[in-house]
Amino acid sequence: MNDRLDSTTGSAAVKAVDLNCDFGEGFGAYSFGQDDELLRYVTSVNIACGFHAGDPHTMRLAAEKSLAAGVAIGAHPGLPDRIGFGRREMSITASEAYDYVVYQVGALSAFVQAAGGRLSHVKPHGALYHMAGRDQEIAAAVVKAAADIDKRLLIFGGSGSLLLNEARRQGLGAVSEVFADRTYLADGTLTPRSQPGALLASTEAAVRQAVSMATEGKAYTASGDEIPIEAGTICLHGDGPHAAAFAQSISSALLVAGIALRAPQ
Amino acid sequence: MNDRLDSTTGSAAVKAVDLNCDFGEGFGAYSFGQDDELLRYVTSVNIACGFHAGDPHTMRLAAEKSLAAGVAIGAHPGLPDRIGFGRREMSITASEAYDYVVYQVGALSAFVQAAGGRLSHVKPHGALYHMAGRDQEIAAAVVKAAADIDKRLLIFGGSGSLLLNEARRQGLGAVSEVFADRTYLADGTLTPRSQPGALLASTEAAVRQAVSMATEGKAYTASGDEIPIEAGTICLHGDGPHAAAFAQSISSALLVAGIALRAPQ
Amino acid sequence: MNDRLDSTTGSAAVKAVDLNCDFGEGFGAYSFGQDDELLRYVTSVNIACGFHAGDPHTMRLAAEKSLAAGVAIGAHPGLPDRIGFGRREMSITASEAYDYVVYQVGALSAFVQAAGGRLSHVKPHGALYHMAGRDQEIAAAVVKAAADIDKRLLIFGGSGSLLLNEARRQGLGAVSEVFADRTYLADGTLTPRSQPGALLASTEAAVRQAVSMATEGKAYTASGDEIPIEAGTICLHGDGPHAAAFAQSISSALLVAGIALRAPQ
Amino acid sequence: MNDRLDSTTGSAAVKAVDLNCDFGEGFGAYSFGQDDELLRYVTSVNIACGFHAGDPHTMRLAAEKSLAAGVAIGAHPGLPDRIGFGRREMSITASEAYDYVVYQVGALSAFVQAAGGRLSHVKPHGALYHMAGRDQEIAAAVVKAAADIDKRLLIFGGSGSLLLNEARRQGLGAVSEVFADRTYLADGTLTPRSQPGALLASTEAAVRQAVSMATEGKAYTASGDEIPIEAGTICLHGDGPHAAAFAQSISSALLVAGIALRAPQ
Repeated sequence: MNDRLDSTTGSAAVKAVDLNCDFGEGFGAYSFGQDDELLRYVTSVNIACGFHAGDPHTMRLAAEKSLAAGVAIGAHPGLPDRIGFGRREMSITASEAYDYVVYQVGALSAFVQAAGGRLSHVKPHGALYHMAGRDQEIAAAVVKAAADIDKRLLIFGGSGSLLLNEARRQGLGAVSEVFADRTYLADGTLTPRSQPGALLASTEAAVRQAVSMATEGKAYTASGDEIPIEAGTICLHGDGPHAAAFAQSISSALLVAGIALRAPQ
Repeated sequence: MNDRLDSTTGSAAVKAVDLNCDFGEGFGAYSFGQDDELLRYVTSVNIACGFHAGDPHTMRLAAEKSLAAGVAIGAHPGLPDRIGFGRREMSITASEAYDYVVYQVGALSAFVQAAGGRLSHVKPHGALYHMAGRDQEIAAAVVKAAADIDKRLLIFGGSGSLLLNEARRQGLGAVSEVFADRTYLADGTLTPRSQPGALLASTEAAVRQAVSMATEGKAYTASGDEIPIEAGTICLHGDGPHAAAFAQSISSALLVAGIALRAPQ
Repeated sequence: MNDRLDSTTGSAAVKAVDLNCDFGEGFGAYSFGQDDELLRYVTSVNIACGFHAGDPHTMRLAAEKSLAAGVAIGAHPGLPDRIGFGRREMSITASEAYDYVVYQVGALSAFVQAAGGRLSHVKPHGALYHMAGRDQEIAAAVVKAAADIDKRLLIFGGSGSLLLNEARRQGLGAVSEVFADRTYLADGTLTPRSQPGALLASTEAAVRQAVSMATEGKAYTASGDEIPIEAGTICLHGDGPHAAAFAQSISSALLVAGIALRAPQ
Repeated sequence: MNDRLDSTTGSAAVKAVDLNCDFGEGFGAYSFGQDDELLRYVTSVNIACGFHAGDPHTMRLAAEKSLAAGVAIGAHPGLPDRIGFGRREMSITASEAYDYVVYQVGALSAFVQAAGGRLSHVKPHGALYHMAGRDQEIAAAVVKAAADIDKRLLIFGGSGSLLLNEARRQGLGAVSEVFADRTYLADGTLTPRSQPGALLASTEAAVRQAVSMATEGKAYTASGDEIPIEAGTICLHGDGPHAAAFAQSISSALLVAGIALRAPQ
């Protein structure tokens, strides 16, 4: 059900990529982003778990909608910083990171299970994503938390990040996440936003890079050079004004290029 | 492992009762009650799940200690009212009750599973316990939440409560909870604290009633009459100054009376 | 600055009414309602204080914008129930109500003062508004909290409510709040939403009632009869799709009818 | 009233020092530290404001008790991290620091005023204290927040900290805080706990340093050398097992040495 591949192009050798977006980021009376629109284009969603965003009601609805749409469901655990939407780094210990991830993944997993599905991946949110990408202890704690709940859980982490290394080291599936509209350093990590050329200038360039990453495993640097990259999943932002239009552009360009859109197994 | 029965009295026909206490009710830098002492006397614990009390770190420690002590572990979900310790009724809908219980039970279950155990029961906390005891819709939502996570979960509810009826109706194990130091109305529910004689006057009377409830299924009314009662589990309070001494008195009196102390199956 | 009266109609005898709306109800990354649009039509705002909605950043911005717009600023304290937006009743004590109102009014007052203004009124939010309207102890606690901070603070309460009685009894200015689009019972309180005819059917009828309330002190019952009402301030909802258009209709109809729009003194 | 000076030693030239402790750090059903005991020895308290600890009820009680004891009352604002007791650094902006301090100081000030007193100082808590001590922008924001509420508010900051510099620069009273049981670097800041000799080995040494700091303005380094220090207030910890005994030792040694104990003006 997670396969949006046109059947005529289906074959064992077909290249495939996952499209993911954050989902269920509302809270109480508040809504956030263009959740339902994006659900038509993605093959995986990352559902907020009640720390940086989300609440029990929002999580249940998000799980039910995702199951109905046939997309793969991941947990999107964040730091306990609702006021800052989990975007501010906090000096937490690895043990605290472990506890926060077990708590949130457990809670979301219960909703997914209650709705008749199964949680398929974990992608840390915001500051926790960045911390787990470059701090080996935090990365190990996040992966261990997922593994202690279900060893089949995939870990979504930034391309070139320590989080992916840790996932592989602990024997979990590691899915390399890339961003269509960002440029890359030679090591496969993102060009920091503080540097010139961190963002691609146009939608066309972003779509072109998405196809290039998915078909040839190549991304661009800020200076326009090509570097090799592993594109397991492409992240689509859900909260800009053109989020749905961009999602549509990317997904159709990938399909036209013969790339299957499907959640990682 | 949850059986504290003296081996000489063990037989297929032996009467048994569970002793439970709330556990892991600290939060962050705060501790609460005499957790570790009581763990020596009870056969089941109800662990707070982060809404009225508890936090991810506290929950993990509580799960690990409980497993090490060999007691059965239950979730103790409460209302989202940390400032009021979940003791104040809120006008929530049945749907909200369902969502709150799924969230909390899921989170705790993950810690128990990560520690190598299995969650065995659910006992609502405080105001949610009382609401689920007398409001059929809330009761049904609480039971359904547990059932949607794991149909083997037992439901702990007040003797004579709607919550137990609902558990039976939905096919879950229903464990009737009694209080040694409280008197009862004819329908098996507690004498309200606002009425005279709601509390038994002495530790001796409470211990005597505990034994009577466990051996003969009889409790006392405020006027001293005997009424029939189902005693599946006896609740031991953890936060008074004499909590541990009282727990010791009750457990030894029950053992002397030939009652096996063990968690419900 | 709070007087939007057309200068040609200004006189000592002119009838006047206040138009108020809730303001600053966002939280963290979340926005809520059409705050900035409504600011053009109202003469008073009620700013959320961080319990049911709002946070320090949102409160500061709301205070600054309100001062810049020249409207009177009130505190809008709510129950500590962010997940329920303060709309669910909680069984709090009068003492707790007092403490919650002191805390929130104090916090907002600091932002208003830091921005160079002065807090002018207190209007409880949601469930607290309703509880303070019909429960004498809660009403007394809310009024006392405001009085203990500043005896010049006005109390906004529903027409016919106990909260207004209490404000008068404790010597604070009581401002009777009415709703243009709701019908009324004979005692000046709102027809409950559960009863037929609780809402006026059209924008025209609501505008007509607003003018009638402000000029003649008359409102309508569900059956269309006229009853006397005290209209000190008219509440404009900020979160519907037509909120700004409705605000514009009412404010221009009032001005055309020769009613001055100004905050209560 | 804040002067605990023995009358026979009172003179214009008498040396004086303030003794402060954190206060009101409970939350909801949780208590923390030995609040009431310490109140007998200190001349100033720093009351938690509901972010890292404290809640409206706890704050009101703390304000009332402090007023009854005749000690000066300060606000103790912290980071919005209740689960971590405000001890974990967060990457907040200076603007966020400003907003958090205005909110918390405003809320506490309302309770103090409602109880008939006046707030006299602000001392940031935990991680915010450390951040404001070494980050000029955060320091400026914290001081400005206090100044925007009341220019008479004193700022308590670590000896040698940027926070004190900022207080002086913005024209607020700066009170240099020292710790009896810690050693110091040559610049008047604390020897980091990670270094050997950061703590004085005995109660006697700590009492001796307290007297030396208050009478001669001299503190000790880790290697035992004397350095000049400004001791405006000595911080007494409230949460250790010997907190009250230590407070008694220090206060009596200071009185014996002819030092007046009084809150800074």
